[in-house]
Amino acid sequence: MSQRIRVHCINVSADGVGAGHEQSLDRPFGSDVSPGDLFFWLGATAHWLNRTDPGGTRGMEDYISRDYTRNIGAEIMGRNKFGPQRGPWENEDWTGWWGDEPPFHTPVFVLTHHPRPSFSLSDTTFHFLDATPQEAADRAKAAAEGQDVRLGGGVRTIREFLDAGLVDEMHIAVVPIELGEGIRLWDSSEELTDRYEHEQVSAPSGVTHHFFWRD
Amino acid sequence: MSQRIRVHCINVSADGVGAGHEQSLDRPFGSDVSPGDLFFWLGATAHWLNRTDPGGTRGMEDYISRDYTRNIGAEIMGRNKFGPQRGPWENEDWTGWWGDEPPFHTPVFVLTHHPRPSFSLSDTTFHFLDATPQEAADRAKAAAEGQDVRLGGGVRTIREFLDAGLVDEMHIAVVPIELGEGIRLWDSSEELTDRYEHEQVSAPSGVTHHFFWRD
Repeated sequence: MSQRIRVHCINVSADGVGAGHEQSLDRPFGSDVSPGDLFFWLGATAHWLNRTDPGGTRGMEDYISRDYTRNIGAEIMGRNKFGPQRGPWENEDWTGWWGDEPPFHTPVFVLTHHPRPSFSLSDTTFHFLDATPQEAADRAKAAAEGQDVRLGGGVRTIREFLDAGLVDEMHIAVVPIELGEGIRLWDSSEELTDRYEHEQVSAPSGVTHHFFWRD
Repeated sequence: MSQRIRVHCINVSADGVGAGHEQSLDRPFGSDVSPGDLFFWLGATAHWLNRTDPGGTRGMEDYISRDYTRNIGAEIMGRNKFGPQRGPWENEDWTGWWGDEPPFHTPVFVLTHHPRPSFSLSDTTFHFLDATPQEAADRAKAAAEGQDVRLGGGVRTIREFLDAGLVDEMHIAVVPIELGEGIRLWDSSEELTDRYEHEQVSAPSGVTHHFFWRD
């Protein structure tokens, strides 16, 4: 099976918003969005990557958690997933939200117009690229050594890769809240059904899981 | 996380039947049951273990396929999953349904009152045990070297392990057909909800997926 670019566990509101404006250190998803409003279903699962206590659910949504790292050899993310800074780096002290043990365990390519030197934390290495989606995809696929590449978000980055025709499969969780303002993945999931196979499944959590794929 | 005994991708009819009577070489699920009636949803997925052609779906049911081998270090199966023979072995020529490359890739423990010597096909080794469920669980866990054990069926074997309190999590696919006669997993999924967390999710295929787990 050839290498694929996969989107996993990206959460949007019922009106298609993945993050609010005014991202900050205290509000990584923007001033109006609590991460828990979007991630509650994922945080409840037994295999959630950031789980530290035992327990957790093992239903359908846990199967989605279980797949997050399967056959992934690299991640691509937008700069705004990496941190709240904008423009030239004032300093390079910021090393992401994830502490000394980031949950990626692979090379991670951060897209930015302001590259800085690569660095490693535990078994994750962050590289900074000023590149087109295609160039970033090529770099990440080479680094993944035959495994797939996770496109980690945020929604603006995913939109750019969708527009460039680079996404092979995508899981989007639509949570039952309305956000109104913010950074939007789509107006409707129907926008993508001319290009992808599409399936949606309702979970007992109240979340509707959308799956898109192409061969 | 401690070792768990997991049931995956076991299919039953809407009336709880997993296989018909009169199993034979030509009819591995019994005279009245076509495997395709039970397995169609699994066979449609991209990650189905026995897939030889490209393509396949990548929706919710494919996530279930993807999990089939994850962190599995051994399988336990009943003799009737291994083959249609009953009683003492007339000869030991029969080596299972799966050809020279069985899809297990781990030790497999076949429960039978008529043990025979172990043998290997590719990276699968079949062992034959005349043992209680608890004894078989202990042997398989030791062989799995820290990974989980898949309890592979059939439904009579699963029932025995459920009754012995040995199953930690279980995925059962309820397909929308009625079989009436046959080997029954349950009269109703409600039988297990005093002992397990339980979730059910309807897939676009028409199959209802039941998930049971305990901590």
